Amino acid sequence: MATLITLLTDFGDADGYVAEVKGVLLSRVHGAALVDITHQVPPGNVRAAQYILSRVWHHFPRETVHVAVVDPGVGTERRALAAAAAGHYFVAPDNGLLSFLAPDAHFVSLPIPANAAPTFHARDVFAPAAGQLALGAALTHLGQAITDPLRAPLPTPRQEGTGVVGDVIYVDRFGTLISNIPAGLIGSGAHVTVGGTDVGMLRRTFADVASGQLVAFVGSNGTVEIAVRDGSGADKLRMGVGAEVRV
Amino acid sequence: MATLITLLTDFGDADGYVAEVKGVLLSRVHGAALVDITHQVPPGNVRAAQYILSRVWHHFPRETVHVAVVDPGVGTERRALAAAAAGHYFVAPDNGLLSFLAPDAHFVSLPIPANAAPTFHARDVFAPAAGQLALGAALTHLGQAITDPLRAPLPTPRQEGTGVVGDVIYVDRFGTLISNIPAGLIGSGAHVTVGGTDVGMLRRTFADVASGQLVAFVGSNGTVEIAVRDGSGADKLRMGVGAEVRV
Amino acid sequence: MATLITLLTDFGDADGYVAEVKGVLLSRVHGAALVDITHQVPPGNVRAAQYILSRVWHHFPRETVHVAVVDPGVGTERRALAAAAAGHYFVAPDNGLLSFLAPDAHFVSLPIPANAAPTFHARDVFAPAAGQLALGAALTHLGQAITDPLRAPLPTPRQEGTGVVGDVIYVDRFGTLISNIPAGLIGSGAHVTVGGTDVGMLRRTFADVASGQLVAFVGSNGTVEIAVRDGSGADKLRMGVGAEVRV
Repeated sequence: MATLITLLTDFGDADGYVAEVKGVLLSRVHGAALVDITHQVPPGNVRAAQYILSRVWHHFPRETVHVAVVDPGVGTERRALAAAAAGHYFVAPDNGLLSFLAPDAHFVSLPIPANAAPTFHARDVFAPAAGQLALGAALTHLGQAITDPLRAPLPTPRQEGTGVVGDVIYVDRFGTLISNIPAGLIGSGAHVTVGGTDVGMLRRTFADVASGQLVAFVGSNGTVEIAVRDGSGADKLRMGVGAEVRV
Repeated sequence: MATLITLLTDFGDADGYVAEVKGVLLSRVHGAALVDITHQVPPGNVRAAQYILSRVWHHFPRETVHVAVVDPGVGTERRALAAAAAGHYFVAPDNGLLSFLAPDAHFVSLPIPANAAPTFHARDVFAPAAGQLALGAALTHLGQAITDPLRAPLPTPRQEGTGVVGDVIYVDRFGTLISNIPAGLIGSGAHVTVGGTDVGMLRRTFADVASGQLVAFVGSNGTVEIAVRDGSGADKLRMGVGAEVRV
Repeated sequence: MATLITLLTDFGDADGYVAEVKGVLLSRVHGAALVDITHQVPPGNVRAAQYILSRVWHHFPRETVHVAVVDPGVGTERRALAAAAAGHYFVAPDNGLLSFLAPDAHFVSLPIPANAAPTFHARDVFAPAAGQLALGAALTHLGQAITDPLRAPLPTPRQEGTGVVGDVIYVDRFGTLISNIPAGLIGSGAHVTVGGTDVGMLRRTFADVASGQLVAFVGSNGTVEIAVRDGSGADKLRMGVGAEVRV
């Protein structure tokens, strides 16, 4: 029985919305341990949410329930999903947020109660479903099984000659540009450019260059990142998500 | 015995103040589950704190202890309160923050220990009192019963002819203007204005209008809200708390 | 056996980094209670981290494990430390962050696993070590005992004639200038200046002056603070960390 529940939203932390969700969860699952992933996803940015959840979820133990609600289509006909994959559970809107799950993931479409607030499915649809999963309910007990969740995966890199071409898929609070090019695709003496700007040889870490210098290295999620030591790569380069990365 | 404790303050999350309060709570109530409501209340804004707590507390299970400290008068002669209502417990300064509690709530005035820091009653007065309540102490064990807590409730709407006139009482992080007009007072085909600006018919949710358009609907707390789809109502209208809402 | 773990970083709360650390902790220490001290330390500001942790840790119960990672030198030759002091445990980089610990604290140098991400020792070095301590491992089981951790304590005040001269060592979210001059060094009728500006007599609390006025008092950590009632001392005085305080 799972009693660990994570939360990922774009609700911010200035209002009481996240706490309302937590109240619903704790009213249903006594003693549940709640962990915030983040509530600072830019409003409506489903792809940023997808990136963050894709790299965080597998660090939690099996049976964890992940509540992920970045949901610009709340209250429309978009479906509400629950999913099971690799021993973890997920609830999220059907807008591509869970596209990182493996093809063998199982999905159900959650019913929307008539009294659910059209603007707050996190509290009235997703939290109750997460509570059921945390209490041990089978996924198929929660709704109708579906096989066609919206799949909108983050872009993947491609080989081009002897090199690899990819994209910046996330920028973190330090201004580090995180690409989708995994270490396994490249050699150790590789040369990196981002948006046409030369970043030099791939280094081991940002401490391998002087303060204020651009540097590329394999980041903590296993892909190439471009940063400025003691500074912001995004600010210095004036680049962000979508910039082309070549290695 | 309650072991769930919520926290609501204007301390922000950049300093260690909230953590000091949590340390005091966890030192006294081993295994207590702590839930942050928010610590981002604008400094000293007792009415924003009142609004947030008024809509969040009842989502938590009975026996929960709510610590709410937005306290511009800390260290003055203002009293420190503990309260019990509807099976929940509250500790807060006597500045109107708890005005949303029903008339049958019970209040006591907490003694201020001589060694309490005059600037940090959250840590030295309210957290110890909350700890006692969480450990099962009777409310009347904590201080002198009082019947005259400061009552400074949020404004309420009034009927005017066939319509209802109310106020914006809170603006959330999305820029949504939240009024005090409950759905029960209005018909479904109602017309909404805010600060003299026409917002059109009351809709079901913001997804019922095009991106960038103004929209009014019954929000997740059951009152009329005015928003901009994929934008900020407060920014577009240049309005905030106190703007008049007519339905 | 300790199951309470605090976290202090400069990772912010917009990305998933803190959650990855929490996932590692909860995967190893089932049922651990995690408390955020703050993740908003200005990037790389080891001294701010030191100040915050120095005043917070002792409010937690004995056996608490404190994970403190503000680590501009991550991935370099700087050592990774675990420490035990006064019944508490700490893990932190060897960059002075733990300089507030008493001289009788015990330290070990943690081994860096070959597969640790050079940019994310919080997840790959410090969290696993904290997990071991939380599960009851002896400090000396974690690494090689050392006696020369980097000591970079915050400045201390000095007597000068009948007065005391110190420094602003921290500025909080309210703009309050917090000095290192403890109440025990000064008389109750003392006169305070900061950066050459007269702040007047030492008061009991900020409520002892009119709104908008400068005021000095003994703050909640027992040292002299300079604030503006209902405002920001840092903004009004245009001063910050390092400003000279005379009492």
